Amino acid sequence: MNTPRYTELLQSLPATVPFVGPEAHMRAAGRPFAARLGANESGFGPSPRAVAAMQAAASDVWMYGDSECHDLRHALAAYHGVGAENIIIGEGIDGLLGLVVRMLVDKGDPVVTSDGAYPTFNYHVAGFGGVLHKVPYRDDHQDPAALLTRAEETGAKLLYFCNPDNPMGSWHSARIVQRMIDAVPDGTLLVLDEAYVDAAPDGTAPALNPDDARVIRMRTFSKLYGMAGLRVGYAIGAAPLIAMFDRIRNHFGMGRIAQAGALAALQDQAWLAHVQAQLDRARAHLAQIAADNGLHALPSATNFVTMDCGRDGDFARALLRELMARDVFVRMPFVAPMDRCIRVSAGPEADLQVFARVLPEALRACA
Amino acid sequence: MNTPRYTELLQSLPATVPFVGPEAHMRAAGRPFAARLGANESGFGPSPRAVAAMQAAASDVWMYGDSECHDLRHALAAYHGVGAENIIIGEGIDGLLGLVVRMLVDKGDPVVTSDGAYPTFNYHVAGFGGVLHKVPYRDDHQDPAALLTRAEETGAKLLYFCNPDNPMGSWHSARIVQRMIDAVPDGTLLVLDEAYVDAAPDGTAPALNPDDARVIRMRTFSKLYGMAGLRVGYAIGAAPLIAMFDRIRNHFGMGRIAQAGALAALQDQAWLAHVQAQLDRARAHLAQIAADNGLHALPSATNFVTMDCGRDGDFARALLRELMARDVFVRMPFVAPMDRCIRVSAGPEADLQVFARVLPEALRACA
Repeated sequence: MNTPRYTELLQSLPATVPFVGPEAHMRAAGRPFAARLGANESGFGPSPRAVAAMQAAASDVWMYGDSECHDLRHALAAYHGVGAENIIIGEGIDGLLGLVVRMLVDKGDPVVTSDGAYPTFNYHVAGFGGVLHKVPYRDDHQDPAALLTRAEETGAKLLYFCNPDNPMGSWHSARIVQRMIDAVPDGTLLVLDEAYVDAAPDGTAPALNPDDARVIRMRTFSKLYGMAGLRVGYAIGAAPLIAMFDRIRNHFGMGRIAQAGALAALQDQAWLAHVQAQLDRARAHLAQIAADNGLHALPSATNFVTMDCGRDGDFARALLRELMARDVFVRMPFVAPMDRCIRVSAGPEADLQVFARVLPEALRACA
Repeated sequence: MNTPRYTELLQSLPATVPFVGPEAHMRAAGRPFAARLGANESGFGPSPRAVAAMQAAASDVWMYGDSECHDLRHALAAYHGVGAENIIIGEGIDGLLGLVVRMLVDKGDPVVTSDGAYPTFNYHVAGFGGVLHKVPYRDDHQDPAALLTRAEETGAKLLYFCNPDNPMGSWHSARIVQRMIDAVPDGTLLVLDEAYVDAAPDGTAPALNPDDARVIRMRTFSKLYGMAGLRVGYAIGAAPLIAMFDRIRNHFGMGRIAQAGALAALQDQAWLAHVQAQLDRARAHLAQIAADNGLHALPSATNFVTMDCGRDGDFARALLRELMARDVFVRMPFVAPMDRCIRVSAGPEADLQVFARVLPEALRACA
């Protein structure tokens, strides 16, 4: 029988996925979660105005979405004080990361990231045949100086940097990030993933400079805007870079409900402020729960709190299993030494109470 | 200033898009369409149950969609009598075509299609550096024998075949398509795009054989199901082929509203039958409008009617311009001799009446 002649690259890729999704965990357990705190979703939900906009758009879904995402793109441009030609909208940051890797990375091309940073970026680099060079975290932070050095040494085409950081919740100041942008080696593009920036203190994001060709900045409606299941992310960059996406992207890939929902969410900044206030309380509560149980909550500029369990990765993995066995969905860093921690999304009070109740049992079970 | 080092392939690609979208046309005109009949959308709309399901899912959109699309995939498997392992769901057929090209096509690899067939497939082939070999249509139909011969001669990795055909609305019988599948050369994968199959007479689609590794079949919720703006397509194929998508796809790319809406639409087959009945009437009406104006409607197994204007491409292009100038959005085939035609989506009666009123004026204007 005929067999398709896959590319050598495809055949070399592993049959793995970056993350096992929450629904797959629930199906495996055979029951729903008692608390869904593992995927850094926003349990505070989307703006009611965005919900209304999505519901209104549902009956218009027979029409393709605008292939130019004109209204959303112009609204984002006005919001950020840049030109519409500086913004590209895509199927989440995940989708945009795939495109930017495809735009720059040929087989064998070097790419630099931190060892333990976003697996989906690594997945895309592998998927286009790039060679990943990984720099260790330093004191639970990505290490700008070491990343720049490695980019210089390897001649990296892309340098991935997530600020604030997932999975540690740590962050660098705008001043340090701007110094990093200014020091990016010639021929390297800095991918500055700012998915969590709406959860960070003022002074975390450097000023946007749409003429700066050294950096592309990624933002999303998945986190603080509470629309992970809508799949809308965007990137801000120099116009010639942004124009390149049009050569390869799925032009009609942004649906009509997605565009309407994201636009309404952007226009409801009061909801974003409301979520930020809820988030502050939730992070404080999670820190208290950690302390009550002899764990140490790391400072967080994200919508999750990473908790140092004070022992090794095996212990944290055992704790995670015990939490999951009690229907509390949380995740943890994959790479040592950060894998001494668990990562808990800052969700609604009811979920945090479940976590507070279950955590002591889970800790006892793996003592 | 630093410039990103794009791949040679990306730099070689043109800055074009497969289609100018309807919204872009409206923005250029500065006013809405009087009749939207150009993108083969379903003006009959989606199932009211699907609308309700999408509206209900809107407030759950803070959660990522199921990365395995479990419920929709299993429902589709049951509907088609195949295994869930034979189905992959993606961001429209457009998204899936991009993935299947990426899976098989390396720079310089040969691919065969018909000259004038789906431009978005060609766009993806170019985007991965494949070399397109185009076979002429024969009597306004794709030519299975010539396509197979060319695939054999060129050693094509992919052979694209759309049945029923866009842009001509023509079709081949299941018997002929099955003979084509049986004759696919070793080492060629037949991409059988059946986007319009729900609009075709019985006996158009060959029986599904999920063990047949020679063909992958593409279906969509964009056409008869009336959900073009939701972005849900799927492919049916042999399990080893389907599994390959997991190595490169955007795992969380299918949103929560999209999965819920498509599932509800699939479960409302009565709505599909209702649309099919409306469609029959609309096609007949369009054929009558064509005849009333001295044009010849070609037989259609799709949700549009292609009309032979009886002259050359320049005349049809002029007619298209005159129709567009009168706010009637229609399209036409790009390639001669099919570009003697215009292509009109079979929409609701009100739109067809606008078309019927405007067509004589437009014809007079280009006489």
